[in-house]
Amino acid sequence: MASVLESNSPSLVLAQPLPLDSGQSLADVRIAYETYGKLAADKSNAILIFHALTGDQHVASPHPITGKPGWWSRMVGPGKPIDTARFHVICANVIGGCMGSTGPASAAADGEPYAMRFPVITIRDMVRAQVALLDALGIGQLHAVVGGSMGGMLALSLAKNFPDRAVRVLAIATTSRHSAQNIAFHEVGRQAIMADPNWRGGAYYGHGKGPEKGLAVARMAAHITYLSEAGLTGKFGRRLQDREAKSFGFDADFQVESYLRYQGISFTDRFDANAYLYITRAMDYFDLAEEHGGRLADAFAGTTARFCLVSFDTDWLYPTAESRAVVHALNAVAAPVSFVELSAPYGHDSFLLEVPALDRVVKGFLE
Amino acid sequence: MASVLESNSPSLVLAQPLPLDSGQSLADVRIAYETYGKLAADKSNAILIFHALTGDQHVASPHPITGKPGWWSRMVGPGKPIDTARFHVICANVIGGCMGSTGPASAAADGEPYAMRFPVITIRDMVRAQVALLDALGIGQLHAVVGGSMGGMLALSLAKNFPDRAVRVLAIATTSRHSAQNIAFHEVGRQAIMADPNWRGGAYYGHGKGPEKGLAVARMAAHITYLSEAGLTGKFGRRLQDREAKSFGFDADFQVESYLRYQGISFTDRFDANAYLYITRAMDYFDLAEEHGGRLADAFAGTTARFCLVSFDTDWLYPTAESRAVVHALNAVAAPVSFVELSAPYGHDSFLLEVPALDRVVKGFLE
Repeated sequence: MASVLESNSPSLVLAQPLPLDSGQSLADVRIAYETYGKLAADKSNAILIFHALTGDQHVASPHPITGKPGWWSRMVGPGKPIDTARFHVICANVIGGCMGSTGPASAAADGEPYAMRFPVITIRDMVRAQVALLDALGIGQLHAVVGGSMGGMLALSLAKNFPDRAVRVLAIATTSRHSAQNIAFHEVGRQAIMADPNWRGGAYYGHGKGPEKGLAVARMAAHITYLSEAGLTGKFGRRLQDREAKSFGFDADFQVESYLRYQGISFTDRFDANAYLYITRAMDYFDLAEEHGGRLADAFAGTTARFCLVSFDTDWLYPTAESRAVVHALNAVAAPVSFVELSAPYGHDSFLLEVPALDRVVKGFLE
Repeated sequence: MASVLESNSPSLVLAQPLPLDSGQSLADVRIAYETYGKLAADKSNAILIFHALTGDQHVASPHPITGKPGWWSRMVGPGKPIDTARFHVICANVIGGCMGSTGPASAAADGEPYAMRFPVITIRDMVRAQVALLDALGIGQLHAVVGGSMGGMLALSLAKNFPDRAVRVLAIATTSRHSAQNIAFHEVGRQAIMADPNWRGGAYYGHGKGPEKGLAVARMAAHITYLSEAGLTGKFGRRLQDREAKSFGFDADFQVESYLRYQGISFTDRFDANAYLYITRAMDYFDLAEEHGGRLADAFAGTTARFCLVSFDTDWLYPTAESRAVVHALNAVAAPVSFVELSAPYGHDSFLLEVPALDRVVKGFLE
């Protein structure tokens, strides 16, 4: 299992302890990040991209473990919708993560991994860390902040909590708060990890096998929520895997079983189970309206940014109604906002996949 | 964990070995069942009810382990929609189950539990066993066969494979085949069970703790699919459990987490993990059209029964389109069929809950 990962990304350690929503603070916070494209002399062309739950800073460069292309390399690069010939793109690993930024696998002050001594963090804490990164990099106002899924939550949180830091806010396939069903699916994943005896209360680092099996089950359950029912039917249907007939056994007879098992197992090569616990917890805690008595519009009262919200018609994890709620809140404070529901067959994962209409929306909004 | 359960139900052992779709056969098949209401002298008033995945024969009598009322006691009883003052109701535990019928926890010929030596069975095998039960009870033609969810699959399978055994077929919240998404959720559950080291390759009987944790995770994942997103939001929303503020820890802060954990843990008191593996496998294998080159209508070519299909608008496990496909197939062979999509907020579980419109449909169809 991936735990204390060797990251080849640049990184820096924040000079000040990071205050957290829990009331605690985190010292010596390291943030690993990647940049693409040249920063203009007046620093006016920076775009910050926030990654999703299991993403990382390798948005447009090969992943150091899997060797696969960056997770949004179809969107980010020279001449691409987020054009690195024009923009300076920054993407940092969230705190709580496992790709070089400080997380539960990192060493605490005593030299031992934090494990479950790591403080529970929030989406706003993650944002606060990245704003501190921007400060350290000398970047005041961003041309845009962009994120899909959890990345969209970070984008909305930045817009609310640091309203002068971004001129444009692009939030894709996301929500302003985790629903009961969202929390429920995450809780299944956490329980699967914690049920694995190799989890050892989180203190599995340096003890050989970690909770790979539990993490794989967590990933399998989550992965189903990233895809649409129709997409799964189109991709796999009831087709059998490398066989002519059912085996009348418990092997992966169906292609969809084989695919899910692979998704689960391969995930454990690149992700730390405790990081999965902390990041899902941060997402479940996310509710932008909460500090405003449930009035989402009030959360955006001070904003001066332009917004763009994008949802997908087959996304049942963060359905269109969630984006629409954000749009209505922005309308209520007369913030400039455009909104489009795109048609794509892939469910929530559409934001990562071949959806040319998304390319056009992203490119157009960043003009 | 429930494994070899003490059942207080009547049971009988089939005189002949039961042929299985796998090509194997199963000897000394015991079937535990409950009956309610008096069988008419001409045996014309029998209704067979098939239970769902985690149901059992205690349709209208207290569960022997939990002490809770039967799972459909709101529907079955004197003066109720399935009126036991008028009908003789039979409900049997499916083979592969764990409430007295032969399943993986039962003793094989060598006196040891079958465990994973139990043959993989199908929905049709379960039906075949219950038709043999009817034979043993001397009941030729049923007034009706009734089932919801997996029980609906058994009802449709009986209609196809034993077309002269039921005058009426009532299939609720069900499907004619398991979709890729259905299979995917079941596979998560199976992997959760098999990942538990206490599963021991299925040979956990008599070894103290079984795979309770894995089974609980499986149940949690499945349970989410039984409820609607709106139902979960209505019931729990983001409300906290017995606390004023988030704990910034991994306790069950949210009511929905606490509820799910309880659903998972309590399930292991009354269900055997291997039975869960075998029954989910049977459901995943289910595809009524398969033997007819994918033409569902051909599956019903010989039927003389009257059908009634009921779906629920918030059921995303077996959505209305699945019932409609069955209705279209029945239309294609000019079989008498009525169909209604009911509006109810509870998702798939609506068939078990307070939906007065369902009561009226059931009562009316059985007239």
